[in-house]
Amino acid sequence: MASERLRVPRDPADDYTPEMAAERRRFVEEQTGVRLEHTASCSLDPATVHGNVENFIGVAQVPVGLAGPLRITGEAADGEFFVPMATTEGTLIASYNRGMRLLTECGGVKTTVVDDHMQRAPAFALGDAREARDLGRWIDEHFDDIKKAAEATTSVGRLTSVGQYSIGPLRYLRFNYSTGDAAGQNMTGKATLAACEWIQDQYPGSAQYMLSGNMDTDKKHSGINMLLTRGKRVVAEAVIKNDVLQRLMGVEGRELFRARQISNAGSFLAGNANNGAHYANGLTALFIATGQDVANVSESHAGVTYTQLLDNGDYYWSITLTSLIVATYGGGTGLATQRECLEMLGCYGRDKVNRFAEICAGVVLAGETSLSSAILHGDWVSSHDQLGRNRP
Amino acid sequence: MASERLRVPRDPADDYTPEMAAERRRFVEEQTGVRLEHTASCSLDPATVHGNVENFIGVAQVPVGLAGPLRITGEAADGEFFVPMATTEGTLIASYNRGMRLLTECGGVKTTVVDDHMQRAPAFALGDAREARDLGRWIDEHFDDIKKAAEATTSVGRLTSVGQYSIGPLRYLRFNYSTGDAAGQNMTGKATLAACEWIQDQYPGSAQYMLSGNMDTDKKHSGINMLLTRGKRVVAEAVIKNDVLQRLMGVEGRELFRARQISNAGSFLAGNANNGAHYANGLTALFIATGQDVANVSESHAGVTYTQLLDNGDYYWSITLTSLIVATYGGGTGLATQRECLEMLGCYGRDKVNRFAEICAGVVLAGETSLSSAILHGDWVSSHDQLGRNRP
Amino acid sequence: MASERLRVPRDPADDYTPEMAAERRRFVEEQTGVRLEHTASCSLDPATVHGNVENFIGVAQVPVGLAGPLRITGEAADGEFFVPMATTEGTLIASYNRGMRLLTECGGVKTTVVDDHMQRAPAFALGDAREARDLGRWIDEHFDDIKKAAEATTSVGRLTSVGQYSIGPLRYLRFNYSTGDAAGQNMTGKATLAACEWIQDQYPGSAQYMLSGNMDTDKKHSGINMLLTRGKRVVAEAVIKNDVLQRLMGVEGRELFRARQISNAGSFLAGNANNGAHYANGLTALFIATGQDVANVSESHAGVTYTQLLDNGDYYWSITLTSLIVATYGGGTGLATQRECLEMLGCYGRDKVNRFAEICAGVVLAGETSLSSAILHGDWVSSHDQLGRNRP
Amino acid sequence: MASERLRVPRDPADDYTPEMAAERRRFVEEQTGVRLEHTASCSLDPATVHGNVENFIGVAQVPVGLAGPLRITGEAADGEFFVPMATTEGTLIASYNRGMRLLTECGGVKTTVVDDHMQRAPAFALGDAREARDLGRWIDEHFDDIKKAAEATTSVGRLTSVGQYSIGPLRYLRFNYSTGDAAGQNMTGKATLAACEWIQDQYPGSAQYMLSGNMDTDKKHSGINMLLTRGKRVVAEAVIKNDVLQRLMGVEGRELFRARQISNAGSFLAGNANNGAHYANGLTALFIATGQDVANVSESHAGVTYTQLLDNGDYYWSITLTSLIVATYGGGTGLATQRECLEMLGCYGRDKVNRFAEICAGVVLAGETSLSSAILHGDWVSSHDQLGRNRP
Repeated sequence: MASERLRVPRDPADDYTPEMAAERRRFVEEQTGVRLEHTASCSLDPATVHGNVENFIGVAQVPVGLAGPLRITGEAADGEFFVPMATTEGTLIASYNRGMRLLTECGGVKTTVVDDHMQRAPAFALGDAREARDLGRWIDEHFDDIKKAAEATTSVGRLTSVGQYSIGPLRYLRFNYSTGDAAGQNMTGKATLAACEWIQDQYPGSAQYMLSGNMDTDKKHSGINMLLTRGKRVVAEAVIKNDVLQRLMGVEGRELFRARQISNAGSFLAGNANNGAHYANGLTALFIATGQDVANVSESHAGVTYTQLLDNGDYYWSITLTSLIVATYGGGTGLATQRECLEMLGCYGRDKVNRFAEICAGVVLAGETSLSSAILHGDWVSSHDQLGRNRP
Repeated sequence: MASERLRVPRDPADDYTPEMAAERRRFVEEQTGVRLEHTASCSLDPATVHGNVENFIGVAQVPVGLAGPLRITGEAADGEFFVPMATTEGTLIASYNRGMRLLTECGGVKTTVVDDHMQRAPAFALGDAREARDLGRWIDEHFDDIKKAAEATTSVGRLTSVGQYSIGPLRYLRFNYSTGDAAGQNMTGKATLAACEWIQDQYPGSAQYMLSGNMDTDKKHSGINMLLTRGKRVVAEAVIKNDVLQRLMGVEGRELFRARQISNAGSFLAGNANNGAHYANGLTALFIATGQDVANVSESHAGVTYTQLLDNGDYYWSITLTSLIVATYGGGTGLATQRECLEMLGCYGRDKVNRFAEICAGVVLAGETSLSSAILHGDWVSSHDQLGRNRP
Repeated sequence: MASERLRVPRDPADDYTPEMAAERRRFVEEQTGVRLEHTASCSLDPATVHGNVENFIGVAQVPVGLAGPLRITGEAADGEFFVPMATTEGTLIASYNRGMRLLTECGGVKTTVVDDHMQRAPAFALGDAREARDLGRWIDEHFDDIKKAAEATTSVGRLTSVGQYSIGPLRYLRFNYSTGDAAGQNMTGKATLAACEWIQDQYPGSAQYMLSGNMDTDKKHSGINMLLTRGKRVVAEAVIKNDVLQRLMGVEGRELFRARQISNAGSFLAGNANNGAHYANGLTALFIATGQDVANVSESHAGVTYTQLLDNGDYYWSITLTSLIVATYGGGTGLATQRECLEMLGCYGRDKVNRFAEICAGVVLAGETSLSSAILHGDWVSSHDQLGRNRP
Repeated sequence: MASERLRVPRDPADDYTPEMAAERRRFVEEQTGVRLEHTASCSLDPATVHGNVENFIGVAQVPVGLAGPLRITGEAADGEFFVPMATTEGTLIASYNRGMRLLTECGGVKTTVVDDHMQRAPAFALGDAREARDLGRWIDEHFDDIKKAAEATTSVGRLTSVGQYSIGPLRYLRFNYSTGDAAGQNMTGKATLAACEWIQDQYPGSAQYMLSGNMDTDKKHSGINMLLTRGKRVVAEAVIKNDVLQRLMGVEGRELFRARQISNAGSFLAGNANNGAHYANGLTALFIATGQDVANVSESHAGVTYTQLLDNGDYYWSITLTSLIVATYGGGTGLATQRECLEMLGCYGRDKVNRFAEICAGVVLAGETSLSSAILHGDWVSSHDQLGRNRP
């Protein structure tokens, strides 16, 4: 059967050419009868996508809208920002835009990166629980050597700690790294592989491992990520003035606070990854626009909304993203449109990742204020009717 | 302060023109000093993105690669498929492609949609727990009327049931709909609004509500989604022949099964949204390529891997996506490149959503076989070094 | 090796006699060198523990304290109650007592049973996902027959619904029953066994099952229990008058409400089984005193605290127990001291289980008010120093 | 209203006398019309329950059965043990006894304490997220001083680390202690209060706190407890010989392993606190018998079952209790019957808590083997019919 299998055309010598892209398009057009006219149409140079995609045939053109300005008073992001958001969901940008106006008129959103770790989490399998515990102690004692072995593979990544979790004869290790401006999943994979090989080589006993025991938890939401941070832990917070809230959103702080109690209880009961309204919407639109690994939305949308009603009726509102995985270097950040969008935010390249993380958090809070108000005020559905693609 | 705010240019008369897109680009170029050369370059007609985006300025060009063929023996999808995947993550397509080859050589992947619901979940606040319970009973008794009120707003959506969850004086309702080939979040929002208005109007007592109490759970992973399904619940399953597995992946079924026990324990302990390797990767790449609401990756990546080692050494492998939210009509599915990619899969338009859901599940299983084998065989890191953008 | 094994003495003819208890005590005294003087001392007739324990050797004497009165305005429990609580934890009863006084002075606690289900959850393993789905449909269509088969085994239990959950080729069924005044785990086990045998016998295809696939979820906390109720779902609620709160507890409603936001966020982040203070304490003390299956504390302590600050400064406080498993008939409820304690609450025997469930919820709320206030007011630690067994 | 409230009689001078117990019984007998004949009957000296209970009126007599011998090859527990279990649930002891026989005939159960922490988790509320982060850093830098302040309150407790978790302007701290042979909730409360007072006093900025922000997570199951341990983390493991398994249980290792895959998937989907059968049953019976704080069953029943089928058909079976909270000193451990039962296990007093923790884990594994086999073999229901109180 293998011999009969149709194969997508490839050129081992140089696969990243317009010609090979065209040949593959012709191939799939023949196979499926579909003309790839638009997919073929792009300003992207195929030579630039080496390392980003295989079997390149063209591009998805995802519409980008412009929201803002959003006033941010962060540590790394400070000023008014215009935010490019790539989406196909009507009303999304209008809604975030409305929230940005609210925050900006209230003096801006304060943003802070409070923690930062990227992980790879191998599992060591030992003969029994005692051996597993003993390996764990040995690893603690040899942390400096392990760190050295790991960091020998990277000029950027730094091993900051190794979390340990025992189950039966297994010792799950969670290697925590700082990874500069890269998201760092691959960097940490390589470094942890070296560390594990060093451990296996040096440990006086037998110590078999697999490079991931699924406690990383790569590309999936998890409780451990929320608790112990994956990527950046970022807070966006603002005091929403009640009069501005009334004027722009038609609701009051005390109404939002009452509704928050209901959302909290519902989120707790349902086992939600966050107790907010739609963190994922803004993040996804930002991620697509700026060349992030969009699959990380699965992890990045986790978080906690925490609010208090102030005595004067103003409303303190914070969102904490517990596992925001972003990069301003490497991955898709250097591609044609993606780089432009990052640059629009002043976030392309080195030493920019915290700035970008803060913008992400600020955007999320903007979207929360808008949708939460719309749900209360009753214009959630009507705005989708007007701006979206609702069809009866 | 409001008066001084810079505003993104808009034309209330017709905002979806090349001219307005250009004007906004000039505006943001002035504000930020960044040239939007590539973002401006697209074959997409701005007139077509009305209802998909506001303040349109251009497109994100996301590279698309071609994977396949993948043999699927589904109920709605039956045949060999070439799969367009939009991503910026090197090795992703190569890895899925490898898994597709494995599944295809083993006779294909069997796919089945086993359940289907889209929700909106309002919360009613009553005077006390008894009133809340009584409202719940009244709603059960008046289901037919409520259904009528809800369905009056839509020609497609059908209200199939109303789940009820009590907390204190609150009654959370989870309206379950079938929504045809649309994902249906807006459709169900509108229908549920009508239903709630009918309830509020007809209920003998006072019954205040908010349209979402966060048990929907829109744009966020949740336990309730995994249990009770959101969107499609789809299974992909295959018997992996041990000899093919050895030949293509260099591992054996029994090794994978032993490793599965470790992944299961790790996933359970960490509180993962799925116990697999990287469901989110394939889904995201498919979602971007085909105009899905990509933020739904947050919900769609949830699921359960269930496997058994057969007596002959072959390996039964299933993945169940519990909350796959997809559409083949409406939203971004009709946009230029997105439609081409859907058509490539024979999935554009009406009566195609189950076919597309099955393809999603099949692709996910392909990716699982590849990455899980790579982790065991030890070529996970080396392949990223070769194909990806790892930088030391 | 089996032949050498020491065996605990038993009398197959009649094992529930003072003599056999004494013989076993002598046996273990010989083996361990420990005199079982107090364990031997009881007024319990060994003949009465048949069906409650095997290898009976005596009793654990657990101190019982008296709390109350607690004014309850429930549907089944209406009046002032003195509550027997069995515990070895100093301050526990004093703390609950203080909360009971608060609630009583504020007019009492309103209690309501809002839902009621006991479950057994078998898993059927089919050939593939389609067969599993088809079995599910067949079961829906044959619900009346299945109900008949299940109910043939019991004069009390009633099958009310069968929840269905698909994973791969598996169909997990969750049989929901009403079980009268018994907790019903065994009753539902027997009935579900009969139902499964009927299904296996009548289903046109092959349908293997195991009687529990761990979605019951017997003797363990779970998300599904919180959502879909196991045992009784009971609400206790009260409006705490701010002046009484200040006088008795030294805190104000608005302080408690502010602290509640912090507890909610912490509970959400930590993945708590409830967002309250110490539901489990009161429940456990009540369960031991009244002959409940105390292991059910694992499930029964789950729940949700939901509060609102009223405009006049009073504090609305509710707790919802989502999976309270209690009985007033069967199990340990008829034993010597246990029956007395149930009778003290007017809860022994038939048609009393809702009354008892309401009392449980009322007691839990009392304890919440007391401990939450103590944490804020700062007398949490000092009261343990005074009343408990703290040793420096 | 306060003036009219009936009050339970107390003697401020000496409340722990037979007379006062009798007076309270008379009081409640008058109020309720119930005779407390058995509750009054005990060998316990009321003077000994000071610090364990308030408003003492007598005892709950909970039947104790004897299980064993169980062969344990632990680090602290080594030998054959007869286990006192207090329960009112028929078949429970018979079932555990059967499992103990299986484990003993297979060479015993190996037990290991792999981690040990008791916590108190205050929440500090700061002005914003930056202040919260900065407080966190200051706390890390002043760990030695904080440790000194905490340990000044206790001769036993040792502060080993302080976990930190940020949400908005909040900094949740989780103080981890070793607490000797006490469970330590009160000890850690007092020590953490002192630490927090020291922080509040010394910190250059304002730092308000509440002593628990609900991340302890006292008296409730939680994800954080499972991950990071609360109390003891203990493993029990055994290789079950297939021939013994067949002889005693009527099932084979490979059947159990196949069923385990189904239980794992069901537990993962349902969000269970453990993926085992009935950890809580054995723990509760041991806890009541030995004077543990039984409410801790809510936390202690959490854990992970991890198994592998060996090539020779034997079955490796481990259970890991992630948050076992036990004591052999303080609390109820010194009471009359409780002390006898602890002594029966050689576990009363100082330096015995790990021994007791290991026994707990061994007992849990015994129960798992028995019930899991019964579910498969089909004698789960029939044994309850024979031994329990099932009533049709």
